[in-house]
Amino acid sequence: MALEEILIIGGVAAGLSAASRARRLSPSAHITVLEKGPVAGYGACGLPYFLSGRIASLDRLLAHPPEFFRKQRNIDLRVNHEALAIEPGRRRVAVRAEGKAEQWFGYDRLVIATGARSHWTPPGLRNVFAANTWAQVEALDRALTGENLRRVTVVGGGYIGLEVAEALRLRGLEVTLIDRRGTLLHGLEEGLAAALPGLVRAAGITLHQGVNAEGLEGAAGGRVLGVRTAKGVIEADAVINCAGLRPEVALAQAAGVTLGRFGGIEVDDRQQTNLAGIFAAGDCAETRDRVTGRAIWVPLGAAANKQGRVAGQNAAGGAAARFAGVLGTLAVPLFGEEWGRTGLSLEQARAAGYDAATETVAGESQAGYLAPRPITVTLVYQPSTARLLGCHLRGAPGTVAGRLGVAAVALAAGMKLEELEQQDLPYAPGLAPLYDPLLIAAHNARSH
Amino acid sequence: MALEEILIIGGVAAGLSAASRARRLSPSAHITVLEKGPVAGYGACGLPYFLSGRIASLDRLLAHPPEFFRKQRNIDLRVNHEALAIEPGRRRVAVRAEGKAEQWFGYDRLVIATGARSHWTPPGLRNVFAANTWAQVEALDRALTGENLRRVTVVGGGYIGLEVAEALRLRGLEVTLIDRRGTLLHGLEEGLAAALPGLVRAAGITLHQGVNAEGLEGAAGGRVLGVRTAKGVIEADAVINCAGLRPEVALAQAAGVTLGRFGGIEVDDRQQTNLAGIFAAGDCAETRDRVTGRAIWVPLGAAANKQGRVAGQNAAGGAAARFAGVLGTLAVPLFGEEWGRTGLSLEQARAAGYDAATETVAGESQAGYLAPRPITVTLVYQPSTARLLGCHLRGAPGTVAGRLGVAAVALAAGMKLEELEQQDLPYAPGLAPLYDPLLIAAHNARSH
Repeated sequence: MALEEILIIGGVAAGLSAASRARRLSPSAHITVLEKGPVAGYGACGLPYFLSGRIASLDRLLAHPPEFFRKQRNIDLRVNHEALAIEPGRRRVAVRAEGKAEQWFGYDRLVIATGARSHWTPPGLRNVFAANTWAQVEALDRALTGENLRRVTVVGGGYIGLEVAEALRLRGLEVTLIDRRGTLLHGLEEGLAAALPGLVRAAGITLHQGVNAEGLEGAAGGRVLGVRTAKGVIEADAVINCAGLRPEVALAQAAGVTLGRFGGIEVDDRQQTNLAGIFAAGDCAETRDRVTGRAIWVPLGAAANKQGRVAGQNAAGGAAARFAGVLGTLAVPLFGEEWGRTGLSLEQARAAGYDAATETVAGESQAGYLAPRPITVTLVYQPSTARLLGCHLRGAPGTVAGRLGVAAVALAAGMKLEELEQQDLPYAPGLAPLYDPLLIAAHNARSH
Repeated sequence: MALEEILIIGGVAAGLSAASRARRLSPSAHITVLEKGPVAGYGACGLPYFLSGRIASLDRLLAHPPEFFRKQRNIDLRVNHEALAIEPGRRRVAVRAEGKAEQWFGYDRLVIATGARSHWTPPGLRNVFAANTWAQVEALDRALTGENLRRVTVVGGGYIGLEVAEALRLRGLEVTLIDRRGTLLHGLEEGLAAALPGLVRAAGITLHQGVNAEGLEGAAGGRVLGVRTAKGVIEADAVINCAGLRPEVALAQAAGVTLGRFGGIEVDDRQQTNLAGIFAAGDCAETRDRVTGRAIWVPLGAAANKQGRVAGQNAAGGAAARFAGVLGTLAVPLFGEEWGRTGLSLEQARAAGYDAATETVAGESQAGYLAPRPITVTLVYQPSTARLLGCHLRGAPGTVAGRLGVAAVALAAGMKLEELEQQDLPYAPGLAPLYDPLLIAAHNARSH
């Protein structure tokens, strides 16, 4: 019997998780990972920490040295290898590697983990960057330093745009942030997000809200000069495109893989696509929302990793692993505070057909006599059933992640407000308040 | 119709919660709280912070000024009023107040919230203290300062003994801690608790483990001179009795209230005793363990408060409130780290008839490139069903409370390890790791 061939397109979060899991399940398979960028297996969520200077080198984002996968895990990892086309009928993938002729890689099982790409494709001018990948961030850093660029404009006020703007400001640059919406960190409940513009400006960032990037102005030499908006041109030495992501599905789509309503690859809970032997995982794939039970597309690192493991296990023919779906749990430290959400927003809940309401409580992290720090909780719930639908948080450092976890487990268990209120959470004067703001919010919502 | 009379014995956690809740439900009832001590409604869990000097005055432990309950809540709060006997047949309680003749207080509904008392009753010598109540801690503090006592011996290495020993050491005293068991913080999984003796000694505290306090040595004037043990007399200027608690049930028992197998008052999930119109709540009462479904006695502040609310609501004749039971969730900062547990210990699980095992993972609080802090998780689970039974944690400051909450909700939902592993907990490099140690422990336990 020929060695089983497991081929994986994409070598960041989902792809390398799939490869590692497949290796564990199948010691004998030949496992190949094709990564089009120069580096695989890095922590993409940490890229802003390199831009800010908090970590000195991109290498810090590597959990393992580059040779680890080949030598320790016996995974045939090929960087700078770009997949060009999938031929499902012949079970092979056309690949271009730097300085080599196109070649075919055959497979018995294929995992597509092509990730996401920027929604906005700016014109091809010099000093226009994105900040989603190692290569993009390396290029941005090189240009900022090498050309001593001082005025940078970040397009997009989602969490990545905010992280990048804050990082570049910490680096000492003149930063402008423009966002086409009226609220920053869209998706976080507005009452919490409303604090962000003031914090952004207090950090010394010039903020333009409700302003669309209509195009770029360029010099004769192809260098960017600014961002064109309805309010005029915002001059810039560099522009960073953080205007949101879309699933990267061109390869899959061309091969006949079915896409879902959000444009991501449609998979079942085994991460299997419509084509035999082809799995997909990570930001290129849709998944299931654990609250609504419906398809959703949420590009987040932890889910990508977990989906990759499921895809890898199933590709290796192991026990049928299933992915439980996501709550879109997101936490991000920004401007000295922490922000997070899990489950639905009010807007999402209403769009999904729930009668929905919110309850907000401003509470504290611990007993009042021990220097408590502020936390604000907004619960999203369904008044008719008293079911919890979502939880959004803003708080001082250290106050958000644990509470998000509590809410995420309560959501996964389908808890009602009364059940949430009765949870036996820890209390200690120096660690946690007698009644956690989560419990108070559940109580108040129930008392209306 | 005569005004309904709700009488509450005890004015700390459970008693005042009951009074406040009853007042909310019944604007017309006459509500009386009898507190035998000089102060009511203080945060007893904060007493060690006064002993250490971290808060300058005991008044900081009052959520409300003394006149608040009478003036703002219309609650007839009587401090220095000691209940002497309950006559259930005539629905009245005999009460002694300082400088007054004994009097009777009638009731329509009675809530017993008499709390707990020290297990060990040391001989009546001067400079022997406990540290459970405002009055006890005030007396201790006055003696330490007024008589310039330097050598203190704390008897009992549970969480209160450890907190008191650490606080007195922070105050600059010579502290000795003696504990009759072989492990400190008994009830926390031994693998985690094993780190404590070293930390206790590193803090400059003299520690004697496996040593029983057999009695006290006293001087002719009635002043304590030391603690008598099998290893000889441990000299001390003051002795603090932290040798564990028992439910304070003398009043209830004399009135014919049924006790449970742990010696606490037996109540149903409405906090109702066997006697009509008599409720009990807080440390004097037993409650239900949410994992085993059986009776348990766990004297902890948060549960006392919540039970008090339920008792108060039901005493006021409101909607039938029910208490959901406890997981014994406990968190405590000690010696620069945090320690906590929720659900069962291995010992408790086996005693309850579960085949049980533990899984321990040493993990980190966040991404490796952002100065992560250590966390150790021990899960207690049932291998035959893969059900989670308990979670014990030791970690750096800020790492324990949130994870305990996550585990508590998972326990309340009756989750299996596989479900715990699939929880969508937050990930952000600076806030939480890609795979939380809780999820890794669940995965590893499942993989055996």
